[in-house]
This record gives sequence, structure tokens and C-alpha cells, in this order.
Amino acid sequence: MSQAVQTAVIGVTGYSGAELARLLVRHPRLKGKPPIFAGRVDEQHQKQGGIPLREIHPQLIDSHGAGDIRVQPFSWELFEDLGVDTVFLATPHEASREMVPEARKRGFRVIDLSGAWRLEEAANRAVYKFEDEGSADALFMQSQAVYGLPELHRKEIAGAGLVANPGCYATSVILALKPILAAGLVNIDCGIICDSKSGVSGAGKAPTARTHFMYAADNLSAYGIFSHRHTGELLEQLSLDASSITFAPHLLPIPRGILSTVYVRFNGAQTSSAIEACYRDFYHGSPMVRLYGANLPQIQYSVRTCYADIGFQLSKDGQRGVIVSCLDNLLKGASGQAVQNLNVMHGWGEAEGLE
Amino acid sequence: MSQAVQTAVIGVTGYSGAELARLLVRHPRLKGKPPIFAGRVDEQHQKQGGIPLREIHPQLIDSHGAGDIRVQPFSWELFEDLGVDTVFLATPHEASREMVPEARKRGFRVIDLSGAWRLEEAANRAVYKFEDEGSADALFMQSQAVYGLPELHRKEIAGAGLVANPGCYATSVILALKPILAAGLVNIDCGIICDSKSGVSGAGKAPTARTHFMYAADNLSAYGIFSHRHTGELLEQLSLDASSITFAPHLLPIPRGILSTVYVRFNGAQTSSAIEACYRDFYHGSPMVRLYGANLPQIQYSVRTCYADIGFQLSKDGQRGVIVSCLDNLLKGASGQAVQNLNVMHGWGEAEGLE
Amino acid sequence: MSQAVQTAVIGVTGYSGAELARLLVRHPRLKGKPPIFAGRVDEQHQKQGGIPLREIHPQLIDSHGAGDIRVQPFSWELFEDLGVDTVFLATPHEASREMVPEARKRGFRVIDLSGAWRLEEAANRAVYKFEDEGSADALFMQSQAVYGLPELHRKEIAGAGLVANPGCYATSVILALKPILAAGLVNIDCGIICDSKSGVSGAGKAPTARTHFMYAADNLSAYGIFSHRHTGELLEQLSLDASSITFAPHLLPIPRGILSTVYVRFNGAQTSSAIEACYRDFYHGSPMVRLYGANLPQIQYSVRTCYADIGFQLSKDGQRGVIVSCLDNLLKGASGQAVQNLNVMHGWGEAEGLE
Amino acid sequence: MSQAVQTAVIGVTGYSGAELARLLVRHPRLKGKPPIFAGRVDEQHQKQGGIPLREIHPQLIDSHGAGDIRVQPFSWELFEDLGVDTVFLATPHEASREMVPEARKRGFRVIDLSGAWRLEEAANRAVYKFEDEGSADALFMQSQAVYGLPELHRKEIAGAGLVANPGCYATSVILALKPILAAGLVNIDCGIICDSKSGVSGAGKAPTARTHFMYAADNLSAYGIFSHRHTGELLEQLSLDASSITFAPHLLPIPRGILSTVYVRFNGAQTSSAIEACYRDFYHGSPMVRLYGANLPQIQYSVRTCYADIGFQLSKDGQRGVIVSCLDNLLKGASGQAVQNLNVMHGWGEAEGLE
Repeated sequence: MSQAVQTAVIGVTGYSGAELARLLVRHPRLKGKPPIFAGRVDEQHQKQGGIPLREIHPQLIDSHGAGDIRVQPFSWELFEDLGVDTVFLATPHEASREMVPEARKRGFRVIDLSGAWRLEEAANRAVYKFEDEGSADALFMQSQAVYGLPELHRKEIAGAGLVANPGCYATSVILALKPILAAGLVNIDCGIICDSKSGVSGAGKAPTARTHFMYAADNLSAYGIFSHRHTGELLEQLSLDASSITFAPHLLPIPRGILSTVYVRFNGAQTSSAIEACYRDFYHGSPMVRLYGANLPQIQYSVRTCYADIGFQLSKDGQRGVIVSCLDNLLKGASGQAVQNLNVMHGWGEAEGLE
Repeated sequence: MSQAVQTAVIGVTGYSGAELARLLVRHPRLKGKPPIFAGRVDEQHQKQGGIPLREIHPQLIDSHGAGDIRVQPFSWELFEDLGVDTVFLATPHEASREMVPEARKRGFRVIDLSGAWRLEEAANRAVYKFEDEGSADALFMQSQAVYGLPELHRKEIAGAGLVANPGCYATSVILALKPILAAGLVNIDCGIICDSKSGVSGAGKAPTARTHFMYAADNLSAYGIFSHRHTGELLEQLSLDASSITFAPHLLPIPRGILSTVYVRFNGAQTSSAIEACYRDFYHGSPMVRLYGANLPQIQYSVRTCYADIGFQLSKDGQRGVIVSCLDNLLKGASGQAVQNLNVMHGWGEAEGLE
Repeated sequence: MSQAVQTAVIGVTGYSGAELARLLVRHPRLKGKPPIFAGRVDEQHQKQGGIPLREIHPQLIDSHGAGDIRVQPFSWELFEDLGVDTVFLATPHEASREMVPEARKRGFRVIDLSGAWRLEEAANRAVYKFEDEGSADALFMQSQAVYGLPELHRKEIAGAGLVANPGCYATSVILALKPILAAGLVNIDCGIICDSKSGVSGAGKAPTARTHFMYAADNLSAYGIFSHRHTGELLEQLSLDASSITFAPHLLPIPRGILSTVYVRFNGAQTSSAIEACYRDFYHGSPMVRLYGANLPQIQYSVRTCYADIGFQLSKDGQRGVIVSCLDNLLKGASGQAVQNLNVMHGWGEAEGLE
Repeated sequence: MSQAVQTAVIGVTGYSGAELARLLVRHPRLKGKPPIFAGRVDEQHQKQGGIPLREIHPQLIDSHGAGDIRVQPFSWELFEDLGVDTVFLATPHEASREMVPEARKRGFRVIDLSGAWRLEEAANRAVYKFEDEGSADALFMQSQAVYGLPELHRKEIAGAGLVANPGCYATSVILALKPILAAGLVNIDCGIICDSKSGVSGAGKAPTARTHFMYAADNLSAYGIFSHRHTGELLEQLSLDASSITFAPHLLPIPRGILSTVYVRFNGAQTSSAIEACYRDFYHGSPMVRLYGANLPQIQYSVRTCYADIGFQLSKDGQRGVIVSCLDNLLKGASGQAVQNLNVMHGWGEAEGLE
């Protein structure tokens, strides 16, 4: 069990990049070996030894000007020179498609936060319109990638060279459904409904009409119904047919947090205690899932934590169930999960640095 | 067609009371005959001729201190003396159960904004635990009450003595579902899912743990799944069995507005244009419903209007539909609808005073 | 007193453009002569007879698709052909500098919502860096422009050909200070402090880092201290020296509304009733100012109204005063004030169409 | 330097109680000796060994039901039996007035988060209307109390038996002003203006009309101008006369955070670098103050941290300064500061457990 792993982060300018930096800097296993941050650095900043992180994320400023970690100009050689073991990619999908094959050739283990390598089926990947789709390199990489949801794929992640960190919506829905689907409790013929609501950070840092305060505030809007690109992850990870699941995301007027309300019909009447036991069995040994039983979690409880919270309610006759699943889209939905994957890949405690 | 209707409002202290006051004061058909506001008035204020409305709702202050409409001490005799024709009750459910029989005996037409008279079935009314449940007076009143959703019951409302103004959630769901249910397009066996989200004003003006800013802000929470008291209205107005519909309300961190996302399976594949035509036909002649076709309305569009906005999207194979319905819970979900009912009861244009 | 004034609006894509459209369309004096909306129209839309307003501002959609006012391709000739009398410019500062001289030559009366013509002193205009600064045309226009704050310049506005509609912050501060400054009550030597807070719509519709929901929500930030470009309006309209007034704007996490807290020292002790009388005298005959006396207005009371609300509190010894002034930055701070100016220019009731 | 300090917390039900629990539970110096939480416990819960913290603050729920710290029924004997050294009081002012004399007699060191012991002058305490005002016990206690702002009173706090943790507003204003006042840079004759804005958690957990979401959201309101009870702390800690400082608090529509904008006139012209040096000198060795120089902090940067952030801007002529000070009212404004005091009292690193 190694204690001296050198990590690196490419692309730290976005919201999940900032959270990743925050988590890694204080991770107990990385003490003495702070992560290397790399990205595009203009000439001005190159002369100054890189861009101080707090210039990109002012809220990361330290007391009295100390602690100015700097983003260095990216190169694979730099990583090799510094003995990097595991690389986090917090880059756009396209960048990740380009960088991962090279990173793997050079022997780095990769945790990719983008959607580039999450999907096995070409049909599901179609929404991304990757330029390298179908190329030998891409197909090979795809075959090596492990879907980075430790609660489902802990073993494969431990040995993986490329971990595809799941989508935020996908995480919230898959964790809500997997236990009862795996136990064969759900009547799939009638279809499963996933009504998800996400805070605005899920839409990214780029200023757009949709992320304008005037659009999002005092509002709620549905979008991407039947077409959101996280749908493929649901289908593959839950082994469902597209006709069996309806996924409708909504944009909430809050900075962060996802709440998914998932509706199922059971195969026969269920009891609250049976369903609770089903979840408890499935998530035994999964420290980042908190179970609320027949209570319901709220977005507030999970925001700024690395947990996924799950609760449920049954109809009186036990024929129908509503599962409510909450998480912070930037943490369990992105960077927290990435660090959880780091922990699993290195055999550390799965919750280390996450509580 | 009368032009000189004297209206009265009992209970103007809540949020929908304030909106009702605003709408009635500027209603073109009530010019010269401003509504009488009545309620509990302490001695101090009685001496001053009543409580100025702007003391209760400071945002109703007029320019330079003018326009101080006063809330007078309530009595039926006062209403008789002043020739009141139609009385709005913006009172709690229990108060309305007590007052309506007396009001009807004295010949007043009543528009009741509470839940007191909305439900035909005793089983559905059980959630309210009315003290007079089963009494002859109550059963008679119930038999006379018309459910005040003009888009469904325009004719009965026109002649009604007692109009039971619908619940806000119920309005948003019923308007979304009625056209396609009436047309027989929905496969009821697989169940209908109604995922509704409401702003905080729906929880009332009383300061409670749930209406505290710290609870509601930056949050989303589900509540009352399988048990919310508007469920009975859905069942009765849509002629559905409890097992056919799942209704899950959520508390949004915004002041006002409801968005309901309604999920159905169709009996056979549908086209977007067929569904659009179905809605357009059903709401022909209904000025307070705005149809967005295959676009989707957002809460922002309907807030501070008296409209209900409806749009939808179909799955590629046309087998499933998601209907999105938005309205302002205080207007089309309460006071706007009450004034719409007033218009229908007096044969005025249905949209008068509402645009 | 004319009843058949044809108005036109250039530039209706911004937030104040939308509010202006809303106000003009329902203005009682413009019935039968709806305003003409003009702007840049692409070829596609030209073929369709212009861009429907609700395509630009979806919340302006009408019931059942009716009421599709269209934005037409702008030309002065069009305005001449259609007999336009008064033109509203809701265009950027630079566009207004270019268009106004031509508009005036062609005889149109202009109400300009931009900052182009508000400032008399070249030194104060310097922040705008106008390209035509110092040209004969510009200087002439400037000399003709009237600062469009009816509470101060009612008479000049009535006869003006060019009305420069004030800035939103400036309106809130000037209205708070003018009465007590004009009465000589303020000790200017110690300086006046204006701490203003504005909702995000004041920052415009363009998506920027500052208008991103993640920047503005759950936040408050000061900006433009000692340098905001509305400062010049304060100096000129209040006849103050730059050293006598400190203006510090802040960005509030709300869609709309301004609250200015203004701090003064008096020349000698004042009483609450004397100060109240001072305001009441000054704003006698000013229907769009609401006085709260020793109470304090809140942003909520003025939002979505065309009023400016003013209240104040004195220190026990009467030596110091704090004036609180609230308004809706898009209405009394922009479009409402523009329509108020229209009313004054045409001799109509100053509050017509604004209540 | 002791490593085995037993702490106790009385009153953990409020917002700052929750933050205090969070900070203490993970404090590195308290490992192995978790704090004792005590308060009122009903019979039902007494049988269960106390109230689990997560029942009071659901967001404190642990993974898989573990970690259920319990609130025990309060008694001094319990504390004595368990060897408590330092007691935090997160109780109402009145309770603290009653408990502190007894706690001190029994030899406990006390950190009181209420306003009970902050003020030296009877005149300033008058706003609290303490029942024991003027009693020998109270006067003696008062004489022993140290104002718990480590940046000003580090030495006295180190040896104190009773530390009066400052008010949140007071902390933000005092830290902004002390350095330049102490250096004699401020012209006091013209008065200092403190325009402060606080999130809603500052108003407490009790549901009231003012903490209702509908009151606070989309709003800003001033209150307590010239009368807020934190004013006395400003006067005493800054050695100012009431006529020299105007303090005006405002209620922001955000959950937490304070931003104070402080306006001063200097004695003669100042340069930015001189002012920056003044702050840097004063806060040398103060790890919980972050200096932004001529930049400006924002509320977002300090929220959920234990820092106070300070920046400033000068007028061109250097005669006037605007200082902007931000902190989290529940952390540096309450519980973070309380733990900072704990650190100072025990000779630990001042920032331990706070970063």
C-alpha cells in the first residue's frame, strides 16, 4: 500500500476543478506530496512560475498571501520528471478523448471527469459526436475504461488504468435504482420515471443565456427530456432499454445540489422494511452512501459533502415506490467521486479525505 | 348582464388575500363599487374605521398616503346592508365550513378559496378531518358546490351559488392531464406520475420551520408523497383511481410559481401534432390557458400572470409523453382563478381583469 | 392635449426594452396606436414581417398565440411614413450618440434611456469615452438635452425635444437627497455617503462572469467605488463637488430592485417631523414618489412598480440622518421613468399607465 | 501546553450551535476527548441516553447511522464528574447572565457566545434590559470578562476565565476600523459610516415574520439604524463616541455572510500602500484575517470559512477611504471565533481546527 503517490490535475479552471483542488490539497494520503496542477499558462504567468490558484478561484485565497499553489504549463514530460502516478482530467470531453491515449501510453493512471469514456455503446456515445469515434485507439481505450462508480465497480476500479468518472445526474439516478433493480423488485414494463433537478453549477462556468442570474433565479425549467446525454449512462449501468426509463432534468435556482425523484412500480407489494433492507444490504461497505430509510433526504443535507443520500416512500398498497436521491453535483457528482476513485485505485480507505 | 355587482372579501391577511385585493380593486367591472373587505378588527382599529389594507400588506401602500381601503369588522348584516352579491372566502378550511351554510341561507353567492368544499367523496375529504363531516347541512352544501375550474366546469359555475376554488397543485395537474385523458389517449394501467414543484408562498404566511428562509433557500425537498391533500381533487376531476396516479410535491426555493412535470404512457404511438391538436381543441375558448406546443413553459413565464402554461414533449417512438404545466400558485392557483370564476358567474368576459 | 401620439421604440432586446414594451402596449393614451418596435432584423424574419416580440422575450407570449407584435427593420423613413412623434431609444450609449442628432434633425422627439446625453460637463462624460465628444453636433445636442427626472425638471421636460432618461442608481440617490439639499439642511463639508445595492438586471442581459448565477447568488460584492459612471449625474443634479459625495454600488443576489442608504450630517439638529415636511413639500404633486416618513421602505415594496419609495431615520440628537430610497431599476430606474417623461412631454397625467 | 482539555457545549440547537459542534468534533486538539453536549432533554430522550445531534440538525447525519453524538441533560455536576475544563455557552443572553456566575464559581472557564458579557458600560448594556443589571455578582463578572476578539485582546484572552465572544456585525466593523483608528489616520469629527449587510441566519432559527422566506427572499431591508445592540461593542472597542459612528444593518436574501462597507475621512491624504501597510502591520500574526489590499473581498469568499476578509479603496485625492470587510456570521462572527478563543486560552495555534 503506497503512501507516496504523486497526483496531477489537468484543467482546474472549472467548478469541479476548484473542488478537486480543495479535496486533494487536504487529502491525508497526499501530505508532503501536493498535487501538481497543470494547464494553459500565458507567457506573463510563465515568468512568474505559473498562475496562482487563487487568481483563478479567488475564494481559495489563503491567509496573509501564503499557500499560493501555482498552475504550471502542461506537458507530459513535466509529469514524467516529477514522478506523477495518477492524473485527474478536469478537461472538456474532446480534450480528454485526445489526451487519454497518450497518457496511458506513457503509463499514467487516469481519472477522467469528462463524459469521454463513460459509454460502452456507440449508439449511446453518438450524442457526443466525438471526432475519433470508431478509431482503433478510441475503441481500445474504451474497452479499457472502467465506469467510476465505486458502489458498483469497486473491484474493477482498483485495478484500472482509466477510470471514467460518472455524470452527476447519472450518479444520483443509478445509486437510487441499482439495489432494487438488482434485486428484481421493479416492474420494468411500466417504465421508470426519473425526475431530476440540478443547481446551476451543473451547467458549467461559461457565462451563457441559461446561466445568467436573470434566467435561473426565481425560476424552474425542464430541459433535455428524452435527450439528455447522461441517459446513456443510466441505460448501460442499469441494463435497461431506452423505452423503460424516462429521464427529465430540470434547472434549479440554487448554486449546487441534485435531487432526483425516481418512480417505480414493484413486482408485487413491498414493505418499507424489505426495501430498506435491500438498500442496506447493497450499500453495506459503501461509506459514501447515507441511507435515510423511509425518511427523505433534502438537497441541503448533501450539499458540500461527498455523500449520496437516499430515502424512499411506498404507496399504501406497497405496489409503488418513490425514491429520493440527493448529492452535491460537484462532489459525489464529480470531484468527490474522483477522489473516492483515487482512494479505491490505491487501496486506501474509500472515504479518506472525503468527510 | 349586471354591471353593478357588489363583492366582499372575508380574510385578506394571507398571500392570496393580498392578490385578490389587488385584482378586485382594479377589476374593470367593479369600478365605482370597490369590494368590501371584512375580517377580525381589534377595538383600536374599529375606532379608526377599520384596518388600512396597507398596514397588513405594506407593499399595497399608495402614493402619498392615498387609497387607504379599510378592513371592516365582519358581520353578515353589514354585507346585507351594503347589498353584497358575491362573497370571496379567503379563510381557513374550518372557517369556511362554518360560514358557507350561513352565507348561502342569506342568499350570498360564494367563491371559497379554501379546500372546504372541493371534494365530493367522503373518503377524499377525510384528510381534512372536518368537524361537521356527515352533517345534513354539510352534505347538502357539498351537493351544491361546483368545482371552480372554468376550463372544465364553465357552465355549472355560471349558475352556481357556491364555487369551490381548486387547489394550486390540483389546477396545474388537472389542466395538464384532462385533455389527453378525455381523449382516451393515456394508458392508465401503467400509472401517471405527477412531479410537482411549488414556491414557498404555497406553504402560507405563518412563520414555521419549513417557511424559514434557512430551510427553504438553497434547498429542494419532497414532501407529502402519496398523501398530499390535493390528491383527492386529482382523482375526482380526472376520474382516476388512487392506484393510477402518483403525486409528489416538492418545495422550491422561490417565492411563487408551480411547475408540474407529468409523465404518461399513451395507448399507441402519438405524434406531436396530434397531441398539440388535442390540447388546442380542448382549450379552445379558454383564455387563461396558454399552449406552448412542443416547447416547454418555465415558471418565470407564468409568475405574476393569471395564466396556466402548458407544453409537452414526446419520446421518439411516440409511446410516452411528458407534459410540463406552469402557473402562479397565488393567481391561476388561487386568486386569479377566483376572479375568473367571478367573471363566469356574472357572464363577463372570462379574462376580464386578469391580463 | 393630443390623444393620438404615435410612439416608436428602437432596441427592445434588453430588460428595460421588455418593460418598456409592456408599459407602452397597455398605456391608456396609446390605445389604438400601438408603438412601433424597430431594430436589427435578419432576412429570415424580414420575410415573416419582423421578429415577434415573444421570440425575444418569451414571457411576453399571449394567450393562444395571439397578439404577436413584431419588431420591424429600423429606418427613419419608416418612422416618417408611419407618423411617429416620439421615439424611445433603448440602445447602447454609442448607438444613441449616433442616432439622436439625426432623429432630431428629422423632427422626432426623443426619450433616450442610455447614458449618452445625461451629463453636461465634459469631465463627467469622460468615463463614457464617446467618439464624437467635442464635435459641434454633439455639443449642440448636449445643450438641448433635458435630464429626464420629472420630479426635478418637469417644466423643461414638457417642452423638450431630447430627454435624457436618468441612470437607475442616480435616480435613487438624487430623489433621496434633493429635498434636504435644496432646503439647505445638509452639512456638505463632512461629505455625503451613498451606499447603493442593486439587483442583477442592472448589469444587463449579456452573459458575463459577473451576471453568472454562480457569481451573484448567495453573494454580495462592492464595485466601482469612487468610479461608477452614475457619479457624474449625482454631482450635476445635486450641484455637489466630487469631494462631497462618496458613492459605492453593490451587486445584490436578486433579479431587480435598488436600495440606496444615504448618510448625511445636518446643519444643526433636525426633527423627524421637519424632515418629513421637507420631503412632503418637495414631492407635492409628484405622484411617482411614495413617502414613508420615519418608516423605512424595502426593495420588495417597490419592485414591479414605477414608484420611488423614500423613508428616513434620525439620530437621537437630530444631527445625523439616514435616508433609505428604493425603486425598481427597470421601472422608475429606466422604463417607467421613460413613460413618465412621455406623459409629461404630452401634457398627460404624470402617472398614467404607471399604476 | 495541555493536550487533554475536556470541553462542553450548552445549547446546541441554534445555527451557531451546529457550527460549533462541527468545528469541535473535528478539532485536532480534542481528538479522543469529544466535547460534551448538554441542554434540555425530554424524558423520552433521557431514556435513550440523550438527543442524537442529527435529530436536531439533520444535516449532521453520519454515514450508515454511525456517529450519533447525544445531547445530555445539563447539570454542573455532570460537567464536574466528567472533568470539563472549558464550557461554551450558545444560549440566549438571559440564560448566560444566569449561568456564568455559577460556572465561574465552580471553576469552569467559559466562552460565552451571547451578548451577556460583552459590554463594559451600563449605558451600552441598557438595550439588553438584563434583570440582574447592577447586582454585585453581575458587576463582578463583568469586570472579569474579556472581549473575545483575539486580534485585539490576544493576551487577556489567554488568561481569561470568562471570554465574551463578540457580535457578528461588531467583529466585521471592528476589524475593518481598528488598524487605521489605532494609527490615528481617521478624521473622527466628520463621523464614520458603517453600512453592514447580513444573511438571514444572523436573525436566528426561530420562525418569525422577518425570517419567513417570503419576507427575506428577493428583498433587502434596513433595520435598527442608530439603535442596533451591536453598536455598544463598536463604541467600546473602538473608543468612539456615539456621535462619531453611524451603524446601519441590512437583511440580505442569503443564508449566511456579512459584508460591511465602512466609510472614513482621513487626517490628510493617504496612499494605498500606506493603508495596506497599516493593515498588514496590525494583523501580522493574526492568521484568521485575510488582507486583500486594494482589491475587495466578497461575501462568497469568506462564507463557510473562519476568516475575516478585509480590502479597501481610496478616493483619488487620498482623503477618503472605503473599507470592505466580509466574514461568515456563524463562523468568524460566532463559532469560529469561539474556537479561536479556545485555541488562544489553551496556548494552541490560533488557527488550529479552523482551516
